[in-house]
Amino acid sequence: MAAALRLSDLREQIDIHAIADSMYGLIGELYPICRSITGDGFRTTLKGIQAHIPLTIHEVPSGTPALDWTVPKEWNIRDAYVKNSKGERVIDFRQSNLHVLNYSVPVQQTMTLAELKPHLFSLPEYPDWIPYRTSYYKETWGFCLSHNQLMALPEDDYQVCIDSSLEAGSLTYAECFIQGQSDDEILISCHACHPSLCNDNLSGLALATFMAKALATVSTRYSYRFLFIPGTIGSITWLARNEGSLGRIKHGLVITCVGDPGNTTYKRSRRGEAEIDRAAENVLKNSGTEYEIVDFSPYGYDERQYCSPGFNLPVGGFMRSQYGRFPQYHTSADNLELVQPRYLADSFAKFLAIFDVLENNRTYLNLNPKGEPQLGRRGLYGSSGGASHRELNQMAILWVLNLSDGDHDLLAISERSGMPFEAIQYAAERLADGGLLKEVISR
Amino acid sequence: MAAALRLSDLREQIDIHAIADSMYGLIGELYPICRSITGDGFRTTLKGIQAHIPLTIHEVPSGTPALDWTVPKEWNIRDAYVKNSKGERVIDFRQSNLHVLNYSVPVQQTMTLAELKPHLFSLPEYPDWIPYRTSYYKETWGFCLSHNQLMALPEDDYQVCIDSSLEAGSLTYAECFIQGQSDDEILISCHACHPSLCNDNLSGLALATFMAKALATVSTRYSYRFLFIPGTIGSITWLARNEGSLGRIKHGLVITCVGDPGNTTYKRSRRGEAEIDRAAENVLKNSGTEYEIVDFSPYGYDERQYCSPGFNLPVGGFMRSQYGRFPQYHTSADNLELVQPRYLADSFAKFLAIFDVLENNRTYLNLNPKGEPQLGRRGLYGSSGGASHRELNQMAILWVLNLSDGDHDLLAISERSGMPFEAIQYAAERLADGGLLKEVISR
Amino acid sequence: MAAALRLSDLREQIDIHAIADSMYGLIGELYPICRSITGDGFRTTLKGIQAHIPLTIHEVPSGTPALDWTVPKEWNIRDAYVKNSKGERVIDFRQSNLHVLNYSVPVQQTMTLAELKPHLFSLPEYPDWIPYRTSYYKETWGFCLSHNQLMALPEDDYQVCIDSSLEAGSLTYAECFIQGQSDDEILISCHACHPSLCNDNLSGLALATFMAKALATVSTRYSYRFLFIPGTIGSITWLARNEGSLGRIKHGLVITCVGDPGNTTYKRSRRGEAEIDRAAENVLKNSGTEYEIVDFSPYGYDERQYCSPGFNLPVGGFMRSQYGRFPQYHTSADNLELVQPRYLADSFAKFLAIFDVLENNRTYLNLNPKGEPQLGRRGLYGSSGGASHRELNQMAILWVLNLSDGDHDLLAISERSGMPFEAIQYAAERLADGGLLKEVISR
Repeated sequence: MAAALRLSDLREQIDIHAIADSMYGLIGELYPICRSITGDGFRTTLKGIQAHIPLTIHEVPSGTPALDWTVPKEWNIRDAYVKNSKGERVIDFRQSNLHVLNYSVPVQQTMTLAELKPHLFSLPEYPDWIPYRTSYYKETWGFCLSHNQLMALPEDDYQVCIDSSLEAGSLTYAECFIQGQSDDEILISCHACHPSLCNDNLSGLALATFMAKALATVSTRYSYRFLFIPGTIGSITWLARNEGSLGRIKHGLVITCVGDPGNTTYKRSRRGEAEIDRAAENVLKNSGTEYEIVDFSPYGYDERQYCSPGFNLPVGGFMRSQYGRFPQYHTSADNLELVQPRYLADSFAKFLAIFDVLENNRTYLNLNPKGEPQLGRRGLYGSSGGASHRELNQMAILWVLNLSDGDHDLLAISERSGMPFEAIQYAAERLADGGLLKEVISR
Repeated sequence: MAAALRLSDLREQIDIHAIADSMYGLIGELYPICRSITGDGFRTTLKGIQAHIPLTIHEVPSGTPALDWTVPKEWNIRDAYVKNSKGERVIDFRQSNLHVLNYSVPVQQTMTLAELKPHLFSLPEYPDWIPYRTSYYKETWGFCLSHNQLMALPEDDYQVCIDSSLEAGSLTYAECFIQGQSDDEILISCHACHPSLCNDNLSGLALATFMAKALATVSTRYSYRFLFIPGTIGSITWLARNEGSLGRIKHGLVITCVGDPGNTTYKRSRRGEAEIDRAAENVLKNSGTEYEIVDFSPYGYDERQYCSPGFNLPVGGFMRSQYGRFPQYHTSADNLELVQPRYLADSFAKFLAIFDVLENNRTYLNLNPKGEPQLGRRGLYGSSGGASHRELNQMAILWVLNLSDGDHDLLAISERSGMPFEAIQYAAERLADGGLLKEVISR
Repeated sequence: MAAALRLSDLREQIDIHAIADSMYGLIGELYPICRSITGDGFRTTLKGIQAHIPLTIHEVPSGTPALDWTVPKEWNIRDAYVKNSKGERVIDFRQSNLHVLNYSVPVQQTMTLAELKPHLFSLPEYPDWIPYRTSYYKETWGFCLSHNQLMALPEDDYQVCIDSSLEAGSLTYAECFIQGQSDDEILISCHACHPSLCNDNLSGLALATFMAKALATVSTRYSYRFLFIPGTIGSITWLARNEGSLGRIKHGLVITCVGDPGNTTYKRSRRGEAEIDRAAENVLKNSGTEYEIVDFSPYGYDERQYCSPGFNLPVGGFMRSQYGRFPQYHTSADNLELVQPRYLADSFAKFLAIFDVLENNRTYLNLNPKGEPQLGRRGLYGSSGGASHRELNQMAILWVLNLSDGDHDLLAISERSGMPFEAIQYAAERLADGGLLKEVISR
């Protein structure tokens, strides 16, 4: 029987650009759908993902308590417009689903411009862009439009129509679970509730989908759980329903905005020095690209819930440009031009590298700790570092031997030595093969 | 019954410039008095303070043991001069009490310039200024004069007179105690023994006086104890007499040189990270003005005694220019021109702000720690930071909720979030009002 | 009976330049000898050292197990050359013992240039220099020569001769032990196995020799153990034979490359904050010269063995230019020109200063910890820092009193105050003489 493929092997074999193109294709396919935190748009999105990976879909009835919250009514929309007195659609949901204030209650009314204006939202600083706005927990209605469009509206009698429903139904979310050798889990969470916005967060959703697809082909140490959920209420609902088994989650990442040209940004978990934090920093430090590490703050996406003090899970945030820090954020300019396959490819590679570190991070004990072992007679001496990290590197051998005292995992040895994790891992594996190291199991 | 005024309210209502003018007035009034570590000059000074606040005055007899020291003889002086052979006072105590070496023993003698010179002190680097010198623990006599004056003295027979007494008497110091809700105390200590020097330390004495006056008008959590003492022997005597009750002192500040144009300087307590250290740093960091933080060193004023290893009290130093770091220090140029009301006002405002932080620093527990509570239905969502710190700030709400795990006091949350203490405090109070936080009492 | 001379006294009396000249003389004397990790060259070298200090010489038979290693066969060499067809020695061991690959097995053979070339080693980047190469654990033979020499070799039939022996014998090393008041030891280790290389490590060997000679003249608190050993196998053999008594070693230094113009470099022990690390950093910080502190790494000289995780001894590295960081390293340019007496003198002075700190570093308890003691009546007040560290310095007095709480040794007080160790030590001794401090013995 052939040995199972490991993640490290996968990383060398994978055609990252083909995957990035597929990710971009999925984004393009899901882009037109009008999603919200509940409703059929969310369900249709999950169907698109199911074309690539198996999903377990959960429906949680409106009114279900979830921690301090309650699952809201389900929202669906068929059409929405503002017509002028000539009957022309001057604002048209069919042109962009951003035109409607997300979660708008139904309305069917004729009114003057002055009456309409309090329901109109625009962005004066970017007059060509339509803003994205929501009103989940306050029942109202409204339209979003470009500031130029707003300025051009003449006095008139306007016919306003939002053909939506806000009724008892359910909240939908999906899980893709990949069983590993251990029941210890890595959680990957992405919000899938935003309508026609590509970076935020179709990019995250596509990255999660194709990562799950890739991981299913290899033998992993950890089990992986991918969540496709509505923001905030989704993670709160999931946490409420899985409170008893959160102990399985050893590491986690919230994925958002991973397709834009910005540098990769890692946001630390609330713990600050969790293994996921150290792994992500190690990968970015050795990536040869610019990157940013930011401390945890209680603002952002679903890490706010995973890292609330009562859970305090080791969950960090993986993104490129941060929420609210790029001008296109929450506007119609977050489109298929902003997101590009090469950035998706880069995010995918780094994301995979982080998992590879987690999969391989172990603590060893030097079985020959007094003096250096004689490496020469074991064929482990005289090799020197080459282009590939997989080549045995003499310094890596010495560092692993010196720091394998039970107090340093391989990540710590990589950090202390300044050498890439792969070089350290490879040295440790050769030393273990040679009987010079033994893994410390319980820690 | 109207709720008692809090310190925070006082800070908003107070007319800081009127207070600064009163401080400056008191300094002007006390400036001419010849003070020393004992004697009537010190007592007259306390009478000036008593016009503003109630004082308990202590007289400790000469010879009383105090820790490793002994209370010295009492020194008083009526007149001192050097007359030339024409009978003209060429050095005259009546023109400046700095002219006499403080604690000079009586002398009445005629001598040549050569005999006189070993008893004359001047400052060649500032030839117009009279230095301030003392000889507390070595019985001698002398005169201080400007270097120009010294250089101009011709050969002559000089009549030297110091009409002083050094006899058994007592050491005088005063306390102003303001009872708060708790018996836990904040200690404010200032040396009041220097003669005609304005910044060092009539400024500190005036700041303490008007701070005590202000605090007496509000309801405080802490009790406040203000000490007006002679330097070194005063704090040593006070410590010796109060050793049994030092446990009440939770925080303390030594106030010196708070009226000059230099930046506010905070000198950390020996502990380095005591709550007073964190509070002072927080206030200065958020003050919008330049400032300096210096580590504890065993040189300076009475913090040397409070922070000696056997006591190690959490007492820091609050000043503008540091002792010995401004040219006018311990010279006749430390006068009513160096000290100005606007600097006194700034010191007063910062000093008060530090107390406000200490009064309000608490540790809370988030009662809803799993996930974020739904703020919307409690009216706590959607507010954003405005001009006033008293306005509810959404980020402050999220930080307080996230870090109220029992391990972080509000100061720590302010530090971690980078937000002003007042914003954090206000958010915490609103959350506590809303039933989402509970104070952790014993810590 | 006169009080025994202390190290501090020695430092003031010593003629450092005379010692440096003697060190340089010893280096010149030992330079021509062909040393290796075993053999008569090593023994002859020890004889040269014995002219200055008493040595205990150990012979460990080939084949003896030593930790994970085995003592190798003994190597000796009488002559080696390559002759051209005219019988001229074109490579000649008698001109430089670097010409022979150290540990070459015997060979006697005629061959073409093409056959010879795989056995020739040169340094193209420094075409005038002969490289130093070894083959301790792989039985082969070779010659080292300048690249210019190599390039000039014509096609010819070459007569190759290495008149060496590699046979059962023994590994030689030596110890010089100086008994101090206590059995606690300071270990000084230097490798003495390199042939004609001056900085690496005749300089270290000369420094150790003359340091041992100097220390034998004073009364020390610690015992001192100097090791003259072959690199790697020597320290491994010594550790194996002394494993039971390693607990005596309180501090240690590996000395290498101490005679070149580079800045003094201290390489921290694996512990990183051992007393030896703090002492060395303190000395270098107060030396008034440029210096470098580098963290421990498992590459270098015998600190690799002393600091292996199973021993983890507090042993640092003392050097000027680091191994491998100066171009002359392991070439014929590491000669009597590279090493100069003035650098040896500087190394000697710093080395001695480190021992002086270790000898005098103590922890005291302030017997009068409440308030400052009255220094005036004890004659300890009013002194101020002068040119000499041996003069009583008022700030040093205050720092020692304030920090002598049992948690700070004198090194920590020097670090915290920023004052030189000698000033702190002198103040502590005066305070102890005055009954104000008591040494904390067990810690």
